[in-house]
Amino acid sequence: MSNREIPYKIYLEENEMPKQWYNLRADMKTKPAPLLNPGTGAPMTADELSHVFCEDLVAQELDNDTAYFDIPEEILSFYKMYRPSPLVRAYCLEKALGTPAKIYYKFEGNNTSGSHKLNSAIAQAYYAKKQGLKGVTTETGAGQWGTALSMACAYLGLDCKVYMVKVSYEQKPFRREVMRTYGASVVPSPSMDTEVGKKILAEHPGTTGSLGCAISEAVEVATTHEGYRYVLGSVLNQVLLHQSVIGLEAKAALDKYDIKPDVIIGCAGGGSNLGGLIAPFMRDKLLGKADYRIIAVEPASCPSFTRGVFAYDFCDTGKICPLAKMYTLGSGFIPAPNHAGGLRFHGMSTTLSQLYHDGYMEAVSVEQTKVFEAAEKFARIEGILPAPESSHAIKVAIDMAEECKKTGEEKTIVFGLTGTGYFDLVAYEKFHNGEMTDYIPTDDELSQSIATLPKV
Amino acid sequence: MSNREIPYKIYLEENEMPKQWYNLRADMKTKPAPLLNPGTGAPMTADELSHVFCEDLVAQELDNDTAYFDIPEEILSFYKMYRPSPLVRAYCLEKALGTPAKIYYKFEGNNTSGSHKLNSAIAQAYYAKKQGLKGVTTETGAGQWGTALSMACAYLGLDCKVYMVKVSYEQKPFRREVMRTYGASVVPSPSMDTEVGKKILAEHPGTTGSLGCAISEAVEVATTHEGYRYVLGSVLNQVLLHQSVIGLEAKAALDKYDIKPDVIIGCAGGGSNLGGLIAPFMRDKLLGKADYRIIAVEPASCPSFTRGVFAYDFCDTGKICPLAKMYTLGSGFIPAPNHAGGLRFHGMSTTLSQLYHDGYMEAVSVEQTKVFEAAEKFARIEGILPAPESSHAIKVAIDMAEECKKTGEEKTIVFGLTGTGYFDLVAYEKFHNGEMTDYIPTDDELSQSIATLPKV
Repeated sequence: MSNREIPYKIYLEENEMPKQWYNLRADMKTKPAPLLNPGTGAPMTADELSHVFCEDLVAQELDNDTAYFDIPEEILSFYKMYRPSPLVRAYCLEKALGTPAKIYYKFEGNNTSGSHKLNSAIAQAYYAKKQGLKGVTTETGAGQWGTALSMACAYLGLDCKVYMVKVSYEQKPFRREVMRTYGASVVPSPSMDTEVGKKILAEHPGTTGSLGCAISEAVEVATTHEGYRYVLGSVLNQVLLHQSVIGLEAKAALDKYDIKPDVIIGCAGGGSNLGGLIAPFMRDKLLGKADYRIIAVEPASCPSFTRGVFAYDFCDTGKICPLAKMYTLGSGFIPAPNHAGGLRFHGMSTTLSQLYHDGYMEAVSVEQTKVFEAAEKFARIEGILPAPESSHAIKVAIDMAEECKKTGEEKTIVFGLTGTGYFDLVAYEKFHNGEMTDYIPTDDELSQSIATLPKV
Repeated sequence: MSNREIPYKIYLEENEMPKQWYNLRADMKTKPAPLLNPGTGAPMTADELSHVFCEDLVAQELDNDTAYFDIPEEILSFYKMYRPSPLVRAYCLEKALGTPAKIYYKFEGNNTSGSHKLNSAIAQAYYAKKQGLKGVTTETGAGQWGTALSMACAYLGLDCKVYMVKVSYEQKPFRREVMRTYGASVVPSPSMDTEVGKKILAEHPGTTGSLGCAISEAVEVATTHEGYRYVLGSVLNQVLLHQSVIGLEAKAALDKYDIKPDVIIGCAGGGSNLGGLIAPFMRDKLLGKADYRIIAVEPASCPSFTRGVFAYDFCDTGKICPLAKMYTLGSGFIPAPNHAGGLRFHGMSTTLSQLYHDGYMEAVSVEQTKVFEAAEKFARIEGILPAPESSHAIKVAIDMAEECKKTGEEKTIVFGLTGTGYFDLVAYEKFHNGEMTDYIPTDDELSQSIATLPKV
């Protein structure tokens, strides 16, 4: 009966929206390991980091103690243009699956960037503007982050230069035009614009690129141009901080209806969505207030949690970034080009890596054809055409709901629907034409790329 | 002060959503003229129409008296997956324009079809299913209607065959894949599948098609295949009825905050969005309860209201449909292929035509380069990348807000933001590259196509 009272979409009121971001690290007993200077092996100082990142963001990056950060008024205003995002009760999916499970998803796709990425893009652009910078550089994989940053920069009047992973640039031709609408310049990576790009192209001619390559290029440009800094859409602590707005809203919506989730599922590339979604739930877990199963879902073709090692590694292929202690496949790992589903990063957020290492969360990997099957099923039943990245979480949520059907368990499942697939139609087309294949790296391949880890 | 209390987005609660559609015709003193049988010149009977349309829809089409129709429970459930849609206060746009005007838009783009079309698609698919049909056929121009119908049919398990205007099929390659995700078959029109398609291709080799052609093909297929009926995304009375959910929600949201609009602006192709948006406001006007300026915005390249004639004409190029009394450019009129912005129909809803004829609303036409300028401005300020169709309304709303800046008037402007432009990036690209041109038909051209009107 109480179920009937839960609407299809739970929206918070504007005045119920979070006014602070939550910093998960403050409540972790074992803090994530610090970033290291690859030259000296010493922890990166604020001063060193501020050559790459904006000052306020450096402070957020290094702060393992402050639990809550006020969201600046200007960012709150921007959030109000597209937030709160709905927490959707997947009544139709439950009915179609015939499951006793209760399924909810936090849908972050109702904005033009098409994903949750806008939550951190506006924050990072805001701090760049506050510092009086001319512009920012970044990389983008699937294109959501680049679009989000372009939107934020257009809003604030900042210059925006985006290095886009070549395979995505080619598979998503219209992404470029969206970014152009927002006044950004977009370069396929690796490019001949940068020293690191030239080097990567010389070593791997014809490479389809990776987030790692594109990061190297964007960082090089930021650090060699006056008035520019680099911004990143995932992996970093600051990004997880900003993305906590997802989880805080989701938890507030659940609390409003007195719903206690059993399982929280999110896709994981660098960890931005997952870290944001789980933040307040993980807080309960860290403080012993509640227990939840928390599951990271990654692609079988880029399985950093499930087949990587927990060690210091470069965040970028060009090895110009600081070292981060994380689950990694080695910074030389480049996912197979047939992998269309995003989440192509070789490493993982240091915060999430530490939590996973300490047993606070689980991880599974799924193959992309299964992911697209789940995506199509979801689209037909729930109406929304999901991003391939988000569909990793859908796949595991559906599997779990089907398992509940067998066992009769009335589990409450919450997953993150990070975005829409409107710019992923080339991948959907391949799937429809039966041209999509799976790729799972062999143990030998992984050993080889893991062998390139730096000695620390 | 009271402004500050109005949120960026006004969402109705689920239980505040309309439970009935409103039929504008019930309150019109002069009813729209009946559809005529092109052979006999007599009004089309329910029996005749039911060869083309589903029975319940025929009843809705012909009913000029019933003011409110209950929305069936199954349609209400479907609506709850993506409705209510937000009524957005364009605070950022107001600020950027420096206008004292208050601007609101009803945003219908937050669903995978990308527009308001889903409101009628689910209704029409529902009645087809209820009648025990196998499937439906339709035409689509920009692709939103086809996508919407595909989604509705997938949800209900109906077959769906879509004839897509060739120029859109080519300009929006990914639309096909979205529809395919939802299990529809999509054919570029004119095609060699139908007799009427063959005839049009013989007479106009290399034609880029029009909604009129595509309608002819879809109707032919529906009437020659057992268990199929034709459904249409605009123009018809039944569509305006279903789309009244837009206006009813918008008015309920405005009423909630005691906001009285001065002007209501909507883009107009066949009239589905405009007729839906204005429905309850027009009711006030018809009943003498309130007055509003109501403005239809159409493309200068397809100006049925502003340069057409009010007369009986065919709804389709192939001249197999009933005759409708409407503002029309002649059923032989095919908009210039350089016109990328949708709204390509030669005629207009009979209901809206009658209201316009009787002086209840105004109409203006705008050129497409100006429309895309407004679209880009809007995207950068309000975040949302608008559909070119919707951007016709944006253009006029911005012009009016700028006029208010000059005069100091604090007008309250409400416009319909019917959808998103994620599948219109080819058009945006042309605009960015300076390759977009305007086209305004000459008086001679219009006289020539208007000369083809049937004698009634």
